[in-house]
Amino acid sequence: MKNHVYINEIGKFVGQEIVLKGWLYNKTHKGKLYFLMLRDGSGLIQGVVFKPDVTDAVFEACEKLTLESSLMVTGTVREDKRAVGGYELQIKDVQIINIAGEYPISPKEHGVEFLMDNRHLWLRSSRQFAILKIRHEIIKACRDYFDSNGFVLIDAPIFTPAACEGTSTLFETEYFGEKAYLTQSGQLYMEPAAAAFGKVYCFGPTFRAEKSKTRRHLTEFWMIEPEVAFMDLDGDMDLAEDFLVHIVTRVLENRQEELKILERDLKPLESVKKPFPRIHYDEAVKIVKEAGLEFIDGNDLGAPDETAISEKFDRPVMVHRYPAEVKAFYMKNDPQDPGRALCVDVLAPEGYGEIIGGGQREDDYQTLVNKIQKHNLPMSAFEWYLDVRRYGSVPHAGFGLGIERTVAWICKLPHVRETIPFPRMLHRLTP
Amino acid sequence: MKNHVYINEIGKFVGQEIVLKGWLYNKTHKGKLYFLMLRDGSGLIQGVVFKPDVTDAVFEACEKLTLESSLMVTGTVREDKRAVGGYELQIKDVQIINIAGEYPISPKEHGVEFLMDNRHLWLRSSRQFAILKIRHEIIKACRDYFDSNGFVLIDAPIFTPAACEGTSTLFETEYFGEKAYLTQSGQLYMEPAAAAFGKVYCFGPTFRAEKSKTRRHLTEFWMIEPEVAFMDLDGDMDLAEDFLVHIVTRVLENRQEELKILERDLKPLESVKKPFPRIHYDEAVKIVKEAGLEFIDGNDLGAPDETAISEKFDRPVMVHRYPAEVKAFYMKNDPQDPGRALCVDVLAPEGYGEIIGGGQREDDYQTLVNKIQKHNLPMSAFEWYLDVRRYGSVPHAGFGLGIERTVAWICKLPHVRETIPFPRMLHRLTP
Repeated sequence: MKNHVYINEIGKFVGQEIVLKGWLYNKTHKGKLYFLMLRDGSGLIQGVVFKPDVTDAVFEACEKLTLESSLMVTGTVREDKRAVGGYELQIKDVQIINIAGEYPISPKEHGVEFLMDNRHLWLRSSRQFAILKIRHEIIKACRDYFDSNGFVLIDAPIFTPAACEGTSTLFETEYFGEKAYLTQSGQLYMEPAAAAFGKVYCFGPTFRAEKSKTRRHLTEFWMIEPEVAFMDLDGDMDLAEDFLVHIVTRVLENRQEELKILERDLKPLESVKKPFPRIHYDEAVKIVKEAGLEFIDGNDLGAPDETAISEKFDRPVMVHRYPAEVKAFYMKNDPQDPGRALCVDVLAPEGYGEIIGGGQREDDYQTLVNKIQKHNLPMSAFEWYLDVRRYGSVPHAGFGLGIERTVAWICKLPHVRETIPFPRMLHRLTP
Repeated sequence: MKNHVYINEIGKFVGQEIVLKGWLYNKTHKGKLYFLMLRDGSGLIQGVVFKPDVTDAVFEACEKLTLESSLMVTGTVREDKRAVGGYELQIKDVQIINIAGEYPISPKEHGVEFLMDNRHLWLRSSRQFAILKIRHEIIKACRDYFDSNGFVLIDAPIFTPAACEGTSTLFETEYFGEKAYLTQSGQLYMEPAAAAFGKVYCFGPTFRAEKSKTRRHLTEFWMIEPEVAFMDLDGDMDLAEDFLVHIVTRVLENRQEELKILERDLKPLESVKKPFPRIHYDEAVKIVKEAGLEFIDGNDLGAPDETAISEKFDRPVMVHRYPAEVKAFYMKNDPQDPGRALCVDVLAPEGYGEIIGGGQREDDYQTLVNKIQKHNLPMSAFEWYLDVRRYGSVPHAGFGLGIERTVAWICKLPHVRETIPFPRMLHRLTP
């Protein structure tokens, strides 16, 4: 069999005869010429069929080819600076594998619901292709960062017996006569893991049964959560900062082409450099009020508040020391200012809001017991978690980064639904 | 602050004074000497406290230290070939962070249920440490393999509307008034993704509500599933073979120390080289019968059958072309022998059974429609899946590798429960 080559490697075969296997992305016809735009999942290339060069059967095959039909073509690679990708294929033979029925997605505008119903086909469009390649790059950058910095991957369980932050937004399932809940965060599991491995992370799907229908919410989303023993809030902010710079740098290095397809303005990404501004909650509230937004003191920051804050900076901004009351029970209070939690939220620029939430954990046994009681949580469910404080407790901290919101920001998408191959939302469980 | 160093980097600091932060793993006392075995998650090192070298307070601190207490020590690094890890720390100062209560896990034998109840602490033992470091290496090797071979990561959804292979072993959840099921495989989603991206993979948790209590079953386990357009069964076997050799080679290269802790015999791993034997189902059945096992012709291979087959070979064995009736509806039938499926199971050596299942998918629209009908599956649930055959169908194939079984095999563990940080099984939902 002849040399089957992928389009993204075609530059190595200039002047050679090769075989491409793929799908027809576009077709134009001018007299004795057919221009076949081909895609094979690795890229796009234009193939040229010139009638005198091919048999009548091949030229007829070109006529028959519909959009998204699958085919195998044989041809010679030519360099052509004007062509998509810089190369062109002079086609000698076309073998049809499957003639596609009338393809439902056309370059014309489709409604979002229609595209979402056809998500399995929509993936073939160049925009979705670019987004998901960037998603892959981001995920790989995340893992590579922790893998090369001495972190051990400790997958957190999906089935959990108790709730991390209340039960109202949990998905529940029967578990052989018991109730199990789908995880909302691996953090509680990362803490004992950090006491065993020093530096750990988990990366997996997490679930939230929220009825909110916003551009930031999915019911199923991926989260990466590092946790480090002997790290405090300052160290946590250093880590978050270094990590985000790494991610953005990697996308800029390796996904220029895809960012171009998305027409992403690169300036805001290029300014994601250390140091990020670190502002106290009180300062953040001041910005919110100055922006003319109504704000009740002591509240958590809402989406419009976050947008107002992030607009003041050219890079991600870290807001630390929220009122302890609006944060989870496991956060450590600031010894200098006990009403505040040693926590940090990182807000993405350009109005994308919170992409990281984290902080230092309460490491004192009795204080944590008191907090569990104060929050009316069942003590028995947390005995194992308290063990981390019983047996060699140490200061420790960590955070969680939401992948989909990060993809939305880096790609500058209007909605998270395009950031994951098969999004799950309120009223959206298919395909 | 003095130089905080991790134990696995300590060789760079010979002769220097450094700070270690960690936990007391073991302690012995001889007259004017304390030997403190320290762990910090990156390794173990022995620290020596010599009374004349330290203040009385430091020597008293050593007395107070209980197992798993957390501490910070300052000392000078010395090379010592006889020592664990090759280095020793001459301790000058000890700062206690937290005195641990009586640690429940001791070197004495504990029952499995006790250890599983204390999984969050059990992780600190050297054996669990070694296993989970190898798990991490395997997962990284899997991802690196596909990432560096042109595959695009396409995360499959966890919530699915319909069943892939029957509903009896599915976990179910309420999804805003609908029923959703937790995925058992991402394959159906990988097929349209392969038609978009050519070569794809997904890697995530999958779920099976099986009541079986065997050494091979978890209710929640991780699976990596590649899918490739224009690949047939032979190509699928080539891929599986190359992939497994890559994984084993990486573990041998990077995890010698951990394999040693597990006292793993390396010979069987070192013989995992290409080519793997590829045997027809009929030949496999012959081996089963020759081994004296009862076998009903046409049945699927059970665990004892797989063990008998794998024992005949020194490396993974690929069994192909099972009767179509025992395999899933989406498998393509062999055109040369229509009663057989173009499928392959890869059986691990040393009795570990199936670690990979895969094959070529049915790519003909009408044949697939007939199969869905024959299996009494609701056609409407598969319309999107049929679209892959309607719009540019191509031959395609893939497989799924179960991570936990692979870890069990490579580490040679008696049970999969030790292969995942927080195992979920029948009657096991905590910690």
